[in-house]
Amino acid sequence: MTQSNRQILLVSRPEGAASVDNFRLVETPLAPLAEGQVRVRNHWLSLDPYMRGRMNDSKSYAAPQPLDAVMIGGTAGEVVESLNRKFKVGDRVVGMAGWQEYGTSDGSDLHVVETKHVPLAAYLGPVGMPGATAWYGLNRIIAPQAGQTVVVSAASGAVGSVVGQLAKRAGCHAVGIAGGAEKCRYVVETLGFDACVDYKAGDLYQQLKAATPQGVDGYFENVGGDVLNATLARMNAGGRIAVCGMIAGYDGEPIPLKHPQLLLTQRLLVQGFIVTEHLDVWPKALSELGALVAKKQLVYRESIAEGLENAPTAFLGMLKGQNFGKQLVKLA
Amino acid sequence: MTQSNRQILLVSRPEGAASVDNFRLVETPLAPLAEGQVRVRNHWLSLDPYMRGRMNDSKSYAAPQPLDAVMIGGTAGEVVESLNRKFKVGDRVVGMAGWQEYGTSDGSDLHVVETKHVPLAAYLGPVGMPGATAWYGLNRIIAPQAGQTVVVSAASGAVGSVVGQLAKRAGCHAVGIAGGAEKCRYVVETLGFDACVDYKAGDLYQQLKAATPQGVDGYFENVGGDVLNATLARMNAGGRIAVCGMIAGYDGEPIPLKHPQLLLTQRLLVQGFIVTEHLDVWPKALSELGALVAKKQLVYRESIAEGLENAPTAFLGMLKGQNFGKQLVKLA
Repeated sequence: MTQSNRQILLVSRPEGAASVDNFRLVETPLAPLAEGQVRVRNHWLSLDPYMRGRMNDSKSYAAPQPLDAVMIGGTAGEVVESLNRKFKVGDRVVGMAGWQEYGTSDGSDLHVVETKHVPLAAYLGPVGMPGATAWYGLNRIIAPQAGQTVVVSAASGAVGSVVGQLAKRAGCHAVGIAGGAEKCRYVVETLGFDACVDYKAGDLYQQLKAATPQGVDGYFENVGGDVLNATLARMNAGGRIAVCGMIAGYDGEPIPLKHPQLLLTQRLLVQGFIVTEHLDVWPKALSELGALVAKKQLVYRESIAEGLENAPTAFLGMLKGQNFGKQLVKLA
Repeated sequence: MTQSNRQILLVSRPEGAASVDNFRLVETPLAPLAEGQVRVRNHWLSLDPYMRGRMNDSKSYAAPQPLDAVMIGGTAGEVVESLNRKFKVGDRVVGMAGWQEYGTSDGSDLHVVETKHVPLAAYLGPVGMPGATAWYGLNRIIAPQAGQTVVVSAASGAVGSVVGQLAKRAGCHAVGIAGGAEKCRYVVETLGFDACVDYKAGDLYQQLKAATPQGVDGYFENVGGDVLNATLARMNAGGRIAVCGMIAGYDGEPIPLKHPQLLLTQRLLVQGFIVTEHLDVWPKALSELGALVAKKQLVYRESIAEGLENAPTAFLGMLKGQNFGKQLVKLA
């Protein structure tokens, strides 16, 4: 069967802010499968902040995304053709096929998932990389005890929403930071956080102080910049900061940490991490998270763009916080 | 026996830089000992950067030094009178008697030490708090592996000199940062570091880059400010930073961390600590360090001010890096 595959390539690197001009949509014929290969029709593409880092040709935690190649990205879909005995047509799989409608591989990057109790797209969200990220940063770095205060930035997002809900389940006082009244309301009323600070509404530090009367023991950092500065000033002695994202600085304008001496005076632990370097915890994390999703004990929300052609715009919007929940692209 | 005791009190808090006017020398009669008390003639007073933090009335890792009270400080001396059966006249002891010639206590703060193989003053240096600080930060936070690069700032100082020598013994490439050609020469030629960067001589980052061709895996931070910024930019992925001192910021002018995003992109661990919160490691640390000093396998250097009355000037000089090695005051 001859079909064509639509793909989005990175064709130039951003100078300052990323723009739609950095991407190009192309249509490519699908070659026949070779022995051992699998072809997946991707139903869902995940858009994540780390992709912005890959667009730069600079020292980061991974090699830069090559130019004129399909943009990297997590995907979930269905096997439509298989010359690999480990996969059969109809299998639901997650992988890293990138920004394209069809993925073709030897299968080593694919995992078959069950979709009776857990929706396929959830494997790109709470039961996928964002969920594992939340689980690792909270349990392995912050390691909160019942009664402690845990703050998470980008609290309504794919990672932050899981962090806060897991913190609540651990008996903590969970406080979110998010942009806008609507997101904050969602964080408290739907996700069940104890409080949420709207960084767009007035003095961030004063709001945070009011929301964390006992100070902050654990901080899950998804944002950086002013939010990090404000939270750092609320940290209790012995506090732990899991640094997962620095979205505020991705466009090449680093925002300084104003008071590094607090690291010493409060004896803080700060640990930057990327969850793909901790694959050993994924089975445990995803099994716990999958069970919670199946029992509807973990709430999550998706922001869905329709069609591959809209992926760049959705991605740029996400970098500006315009999404509300896990940003996905529905490919078919 | 009636004697008088000379003491130095903190009489005002610094506004900006500390000055001699913040201190006052007083002469106080010694009261007769009560049952259970011990009197120590202090031979040595230790001057340490942490004291500057205590002079402020602000959130720090310890309660502020009270005004009109004897300045806090580590001391080493000899028991001259005892109504406590655990101590006899002539015992050599270390304690925290503060900036005064005689200490009187119930003995609970005193430890008897052996001075046959280890000089008394060394218990305020490599076999005391500075040594334990070096040992903890290096072994418990940086935890270097043979072949890795360890950098330490204030490398000729009481803590830094031990960090580098222990790193060398662990098979690491040890690089110091110090101020001036003389200190740098000492760090390399006498202490045995592989290299030393003079932060007073030209571009710190470029010098550091040349001295750390494999990047930096562990950084022991005694200084903060520009030195921290330069070293942070050399950190390898998975690097560890033990934050022991932020002397550059003690005078109330915090120096921002310019590129906090490196915490994420390099997945760094940063841990602020104060060694008095880790008393469990002291016996092991001091036993190892004492054995090295006794065997003359650990080199250290002292900067000695003569007489209690010179303690404030020596202290202020130390904050500016004018000392060369562990700053002590010889009291008698």
